[in-house]
Amino acid sequence: MVTFLSARDIARIVGEVGARRFWLRLVDDLRHDFMRWDAFETSPRYASHSPRGVIELMPTSDGEAFAFKFVNGHPGNTQFNLQTVVAFGALADVETGYPTLIADMTLATAFRTGATSALAAAHLARPDSKTMALIGLGAQSEFQACAFQAVLGVDRLRVFDVDLDAVEKFERNMADFGLTIIRCANARSAASGADIITTITADKKFATILADDMVGPGTHINAVGGDCPGKTELARELLLRSQIFVEYAPQTRREGEIQQLDPEHPVTELREILAGHRPGRTSKDAITIFDSVGFAIEDFSVLRLLRDLARETGVGRKIELIAEPADPKDLFSLLHPLDAEQEDAATRVRTEQPA
Amino acid sequence: MVTFLSARDIARIVGEVGARRFWLRLVDDLRHDFMRWDAFETSPRYASHSPRGVIELMPTSDGEAFAFKFVNGHPGNTQFNLQTVVAFGALADVETGYPTLIADMTLATAFRTGATSALAAAHLARPDSKTMALIGLGAQSEFQACAFQAVLGVDRLRVFDVDLDAVEKFERNMADFGLTIIRCANARSAASGADIITTITADKKFATILADDMVGPGTHINAVGGDCPGKTELARELLLRSQIFVEYAPQTRREGEIQQLDPEHPVTELREILAGHRPGRTSKDAITIFDSVGFAIEDFSVLRLLRDLARETGVGRKIELIAEPADPKDLFSLLHPLDAEQEDAATRVRTEQPA
Repeated sequence: MVTFLSARDIARIVGEVGARRFWLRLVDDLRHDFMRWDAFETSPRYASHSPRGVIELMPTSDGEAFAFKFVNGHPGNTQFNLQTVVAFGALADVETGYPTLIADMTLATAFRTGATSALAAAHLARPDSKTMALIGLGAQSEFQACAFQAVLGVDRLRVFDVDLDAVEKFERNMADFGLTIIRCANARSAASGADIITTITADKKFATILADDMVGPGTHINAVGGDCPGKTELARELLLRSQIFVEYAPQTRREGEIQQLDPEHPVTELREILAGHRPGRTSKDAITIFDSVGFAIEDFSVLRLLRDLARETGVGRKIELIAEPADPKDLFSLLHPLDAEQEDAATRVRTEQPA
Repeated sequence: MVTFLSARDIARIVGEVGARRFWLRLVDDLRHDFMRWDAFETSPRYASHSPRGVIELMPTSDGEAFAFKFVNGHPGNTQFNLQTVVAFGALADVETGYPTLIADMTLATAFRTGATSALAAAHLARPDSKTMALIGLGAQSEFQACAFQAVLGVDRLRVFDVDLDAVEKFERNMADFGLTIIRCANARSAASGADIITTITADKKFATILADDMVGPGTHINAVGGDCPGKTELARELLLRSQIFVEYAPQTRREGEIQQLDPEHPVTELREILAGHRPGRTSKDAITIFDSVGFAIEDFSVLRLLRDLARETGVGRKIELIAEPADPKDLFSLLHPLDAEQEDAATRVRTEQPA
């Protein structure tokens, strides 16, 4: 039997474990998995493009568990009151090939994205960072706010979105989190005086959400919204005077902010600073950028954590995702309820004598 | 909500529709889909290899529905009383990217394999074929027998397996199907006098289940067991004097019987004879071979049929495989049950006046 976790189940798990403990555990798991990077087999995502959007399969394996995520991207969905991105994922046991977990990943992706941002910021932002600008208050924004509060103690948010409904939704969702939220009139105002700037707008075009002169020395930029070819948020000049950190350079050069730069432009992979092989922030006044696009190992980490927490909390239910006949060589036995429907003409069997 | 079909649900659907009608409808759908081959986007399967086996993802799309199958292959599983191959699959709507169906595919794969074999034989076997040799009585054997009975009226089976338990299991499962089953002492005896020979043994090595001198003129060979690199069942000489038909030549040259032949050896794709672009059997005395390895479009066809029949019969249930928040921009609302667990420290909001 395979464990099935709906978004509701995942919310229940987070509730049982405690949101703060969940964030910290997820960040720990991500750190652990990024540091054993070479244990993972990854491959380019499989993408099926259509006029309306894209459907992708993202597989990875660490030799013990195989994971994949199904995820779409359909920018026009909002006009039908549908989500732009939905996702589900599965884990399987590499030793037997049997699936063990199937789960919603719309919520899980939001969690792993927030946790990866917080993990990077914990190593890149100035240690005394308390104020974060949050530019773009869409579906991912609260997850970023929660992750940075749980992991870095960021409790002061300077927020902006062109859509006032989004601002109000954000404030409503964050009402009981003990934060100070400062509504700003524009992105420039939000960025002003922030220790950390998180950009997370949805524009699918080369946009300049953050101009070069909006960012002061010592700032850490958590650039989450530029995550596919043709979609960026940061001014090129800003990139050129910053230290840039990425999940996996070949993928980020296609999908991230650095698609604006020369393919040889130096960047550092997150795993290198986690392992201590390369420095993170080199000075108090440096601008650091985490150019986040999302990577298959992050999906792996969150799926495995959810599998473990489902066991620990007893949340979720078992479904017969795969046929399990009593005798594995007798798959047809699963059809026996059909016998009633058969015409029941007797089959004659005889044994042929060898000539 | 996504429809979930377990193997039990699929058995129920087949029962409600009637097994014979189900087979005929599946064969019709396969014919239809093979004939509109160019409508499909397919790609090489993604395979993750480990010492114990392989896990694969097989995606395809016809521009309306996107399908993929998760399938493993772990030859050592039988020693743990586990199945060698299990599978599940999903369909999604290309227009929105939303998944619509998730289903067991262990049973569904057995159905589509049997139906594809019967479809090919309907075009390649001599029209008066009534006797089929069935060599290898494993998990797929009954499905082949049922498909050939439903589609071609084959009601006489000459059967052989090295494992007597498998023979008895087969006879038990087929007891009420109005067949004549002749137990044979070996593969040679089974093949003798058969109009159609189905080979479906499980050896993962170059084996010769069917030697050249075991096959008389006019026979159709349905070669199902040779389906991965290194696994074949037919003698090379037999291939050389036969007309060979395949699902998709580039894939079959790697995985099928024809991996034994020169990469330029002429073969005909099933879709070409279905469309009337190339001849099938060219004479009463020709030996025809359908070198079947399984192709992604077959999985697509059976998943779509199951989706439609789930609607028609009301079998299956809805699961929340993806999060569906009331407001698609408010994913965080799914966590509101957590609010009770929060420390409920009030967030202060203020609006910053533009400078």
